[in-house]
Amino acid sequence: MTREGILLVISGPSGVGKGTLCTAILKEVSDLVYSISATSRSPRPGEVHGVNYYFWRRPEFEAKIERDEFLEWATVYGNLYGTPKTQVQEAVKLGKDVILEIDIEGARQIKEKFRDGVFVFIAPPSLEELARRLTKRGADSDEEIQRRLNLASEELDYVSEYDYIVHNDDLESALLKLKSILLAERCRVRRFRSKF
Amino acid sequence: MTREGILLVISGPSGVGKGTLCTAILKEVSDLVYSISATSRSPRPGEVHGVNYYFWRRPEFEAKIERDEFLEWATVYGNLYGTPKTQVQEAVKLGKDVILEIDIEGARQIKEKFRDGVFVFIAPPSLEELARRLTKRGADSDEEIQRRLNLASEELDYVSEYDYIVHNDDLESALLKLKSILLAERCRVRRFRSKF
Repeated sequence: MTREGILLVISGPSGVGKGTLCTAILKEVSDLVYSISATSRSPRPGEVHGVNYYFWRRPEFEAKIERDEFLEWATVYGNLYGTPKTQVQEAVKLGKDVILEIDIEGARQIKEKFRDGVFVFIAPPSLEELARRLTKRGADSDEEIQRRLNLASEELDYVSEYDYIVHNDDLESALLKLKSILLAERCRVRRFRSKF
Repeated sequence: MTREGILLVISGPSGVGKGTLCTAILKEVSDLVYSISATSRSPRPGEVHGVNYYFWRRPEFEAKIERDEFLEWATVYGNLYGTPKTQVQEAVKLGKDVILEIDIEGARQIKEKFRDGVFVFIAPPSLEELARRLTKRGADSDEEIQRRLNLASEELDYVSEYDYIVHNDDLESALLKLKSILLAERCRVRRFRSKF
């Protein structure tokens, strides 16, 4: 009795703790594959091609867009970013589960091309708490924080397009929920190919 | 942000360990409500009305059938058994999660009346293992064991009507899967009533 792999899409507002949650679940679930993004920007010191990102030059990246080789792509601050299709599709075909961290617009694009994915919205406990976190992080100006909060407030409108919502109240509790979602989805009858 | 309760239907072949799993998850998840069945048979020594069963006399039971007050009912060895609707519906309306252990025919009936339920099929590791367990239990004759095995083999055909399948390889692993299914379903976006 074989099962196809799961594409677990982790999305939500900026600053909500998506990255920390992904790192945490990857540590605990050893057979989960991390989907590596591609970018046209240059590697920063210490970044490795095929580990942190696939670093593809802009013409190569644009040719791949032309050939519809991305599950989603976007331009951010003038650089191209995207999720290559093949690595996700091949892993899933082999029965491996793939985790992918992406912003909300990216998740919408992926949903159009990969309906069978499991879409998890990571939500802050409240907008007040999100404000506190962004301020505490100290990486953004007040204006930038306000911009992010407005965006987060709008982004909450998209929750209804997701399968699951996980409030990132505290890491342990959110991680348990995320692991439960993966384990439950692994038991879904519709994922099994053969007769029982 | 309120959520409606979940009706968790635990079903599967006879002898597969449904009862043990239900007892185990009820011990660990304190806010899970056990759905008490009703029967027209007399209480056995030690059995308490409203704890083990609702003991209703046959005319009362039949009147309730007439009034469509059961999620499912069946005659077993001449006695009536059934799942009263109201306790499940009221608990779920209040946002409480209800667990219900039932045979496969009962689960089919419930699915017709309660589409929103979460249907979990507990499967034996294999028919060979099921045979071993039934023999070990020592409660049944060889003929009865063969009858149960034939039935279990037929019952596996119904798995496709369920949401989840949990192989009861060992209690710990099956219990973790069952808890994960409940925890994941609690995070389902479609269960939340209000806007986020």
